[in-house]
Amino acid sequence: MQSSYSYQALYRFTLDVFKKIGCNDPHAQIAAKVLLSADMRGVDSHGIARLTGYVRLWEAGRVNPNPDIQIVHQTPSTAVVDGDKGLGLVVAHKAMQIAMDKAEKVGTGWVSVKNSNHFGIAGIHAMMALEKDMIGMAMTNASALVAPTFSSERMLGTNPIAVAIPAGNQPPFVADLATTTVANGKLEVASRKNESIPKGWAQDNQGLPSEDPACVKQGGALLPLGGDRTHGSHKGYALSSVVDIFSAVLSGASYGPWAPPFPAYIPMPENMPGEGLGHFLGAMRVDAFRSKESFFENMDNWINRFKNATPAAGHERVLIPGMPEAEKEAYHKRHGIPLLDAVIGDLQQLAEKLGVQPLD
Amino acid sequence: MQSSYSYQALYRFTLDVFKKIGCNDPHAQIAAKVLLSADMRGVDSHGIARLTGYVRLWEAGRVNPNPDIQIVHQTPSTAVVDGDKGLGLVVAHKAMQIAMDKAEKVGTGWVSVKNSNHFGIAGIHAMMALEKDMIGMAMTNASALVAPTFSSERMLGTNPIAVAIPAGNQPPFVADLATTTVANGKLEVASRKNESIPKGWAQDNQGLPSEDPACVKQGGALLPLGGDRTHGSHKGYALSSVVDIFSAVLSGASYGPWAPPFPAYIPMPENMPGEGLGHFLGAMRVDAFRSKESFFENMDNWINRFKNATPAAGHERVLIPGMPEAEKEAYHKRHGIPLLDAVIGDLQQLAEKLGVQPLD
Repeated sequence: MQSSYSYQALYRFTLDVFKKIGCNDPHAQIAAKVLLSADMRGVDSHGIARLTGYVRLWEAGRVNPNPDIQIVHQTPSTAVVDGDKGLGLVVAHKAMQIAMDKAEKVGTGWVSVKNSNHFGIAGIHAMMALEKDMIGMAMTNASALVAPTFSSERMLGTNPIAVAIPAGNQPPFVADLATTTVANGKLEVASRKNESIPKGWAQDNQGLPSEDPACVKQGGALLPLGGDRTHGSHKGYALSSVVDIFSAVLSGASYGPWAPPFPAYIPMPENMPGEGLGHFLGAMRVDAFRSKESFFENMDNWINRFKNATPAAGHERVLIPGMPEAEKEAYHKRHGIPLLDAVIGDLQQLAEKLGVQPLD
Repeated sequence: MQSSYSYQALYRFTLDVFKKIGCNDPHAQIAAKVLLSADMRGVDSHGIARLTGYVRLWEAGRVNPNPDIQIVHQTPSTAVVDGDKGLGLVVAHKAMQIAMDKAEKVGTGWVSVKNSNHFGIAGIHAMMALEKDMIGMAMTNASALVAPTFSSERMLGTNPIAVAIPAGNQPPFVADLATTTVANGKLEVASRKNESIPKGWAQDNQGLPSEDPACVKQGGALLPLGGDRTHGSHKGYALSSVVDIFSAVLSGASYGPWAPPFPAYIPMPENMPGEGLGHFLGAMRVDAFRSKESFFENMDNWINRFKNATPAAGHERVLIPGMPEAEKEAYHKRHGIPLLDAVIGDLQQLAEKLGVQPLD
């Protein structure tokens, strides 16, 4: 059902594909690195399995492989960036670099992006800040799949929030979370296994709670973090809305139910109020608040104390956000990255279609 | 069981109390206004019902009524403020003003605060930004009552996040949410009514799910937003951690299980790693990103579209974050603010003790 590949093999292949569709060398390198960071960190849904999806967006003319990524408005600590329909993987990376350059000068930098598309995993963009001893933040809006509390209509995407915080001797704190109870992928897994899903994950097309994993495909919706009003879904709805507004209303991208879809076969929404998908990136220099030494000392102590919190009955350890992903990354570096046969088949077809050297 | 009072009557009383414990006029005015905003917006747990609690902190020497609130570190877009043990109600207000002054100059302003205490409702500090056409953010850490996912130990407070976003003709968007499934007050209500609580709200002292509203008092804990791992509690845990780190590690306040308690009868934690409670305040000028006109037009459209989303079966309307609180505020302006007899009794005792004119 699956085989493992080295990072180097996947990188060579991904780079070839991005170059073949017209990306210049530096852009193709960024895109491959950002995309594969998902596979490395164990977020399979957002990695190389999506490569054919990006190529289809290019075929449909929805992605510009050679974008002119420009600042269109700015102050010392802010900017709006026009992604010129470039790959979100590249546009968000460039926007984060701008946020970090501003943080270098005035303490923090905040960049809202329009005219972009799917940017891969949020965490990897936030983590760019770590090497400069900065806190990084990344958000993006996404096509509508989530219903607000009390609504039966899909109005929001899975709209993730990522925050990366550097430490001293400890590994960094990296939160990266969709503002839903679960990702759509979990419903697909349950569907394939013919299993029901827990209440609080999704609702049917009338807005009623459902335990049928097919309910979203049949016009239902994913639910905001919290699941239902009794468990605080209005909070997940509010957080998802903030991500949508910071990413798309602040930049002039398309927001809410008008966010452009990732699958190229889904038609674009009518009467879009803005340009493309939106992101929001932020960087804060740690020493814009206090000395690095004091911050790192306290942050190490924070992480240590939480790692050593008493585990609940039946559990062995308390995790720090980012720890499971860092452990997967270490494992994949040693043992290679496993890909499902279905994904490998897709990629080999893609190689043939584009005339690039197949995965080996 | 309850009587209603005009805002003016409650304001006169609250102002007298804060002056009596030694606040100067401007500080007493800020403290009264911030505290009562909770009652006006229907967040009874954080309003005048807590006035006696603040006075007890003063009696215990944990609150300094005449603080010298100072910036101790800064860049053009950031500052760390030392609250000098002042009332959080006042310290956070001053810190937000500093964030807004910085936003005026360089687009955004971000202030982390140490040496403070309970700041009332987060939303009111974030909302200060609205009158200047800025987006406002406010967070605070709080004494430990919440267990991380997989832990039986209380490590985090209810750590709220508030985001206030101005609109054009529409009322503003105001999200203000504790990063738990519910507030502790809901368990107290269930306890008084002898009712069980839904799964996902709390756990017992072994870290096992509990439906007993007394479980938290008996050494259990509230649960992070999501409730359990299946419903994404690790995301609520991550968000609560970010609030703790931004508020307290970034400023040098006491974080995690060392955050100082609000009730004066609870002893301070031992070996506190920082000074007092921490807050994090932010302000972003809307026109640091795009023209106010374009932003307000899109924001009005966003709000309109979400208000008009199809309601789920059994529901009549979809709410915008902040709408229920704004409706309560309008109602209380017309009809007065209802207080429980128990709260009124407390306040009249307080009046007698301090020698201020009773509530009338």
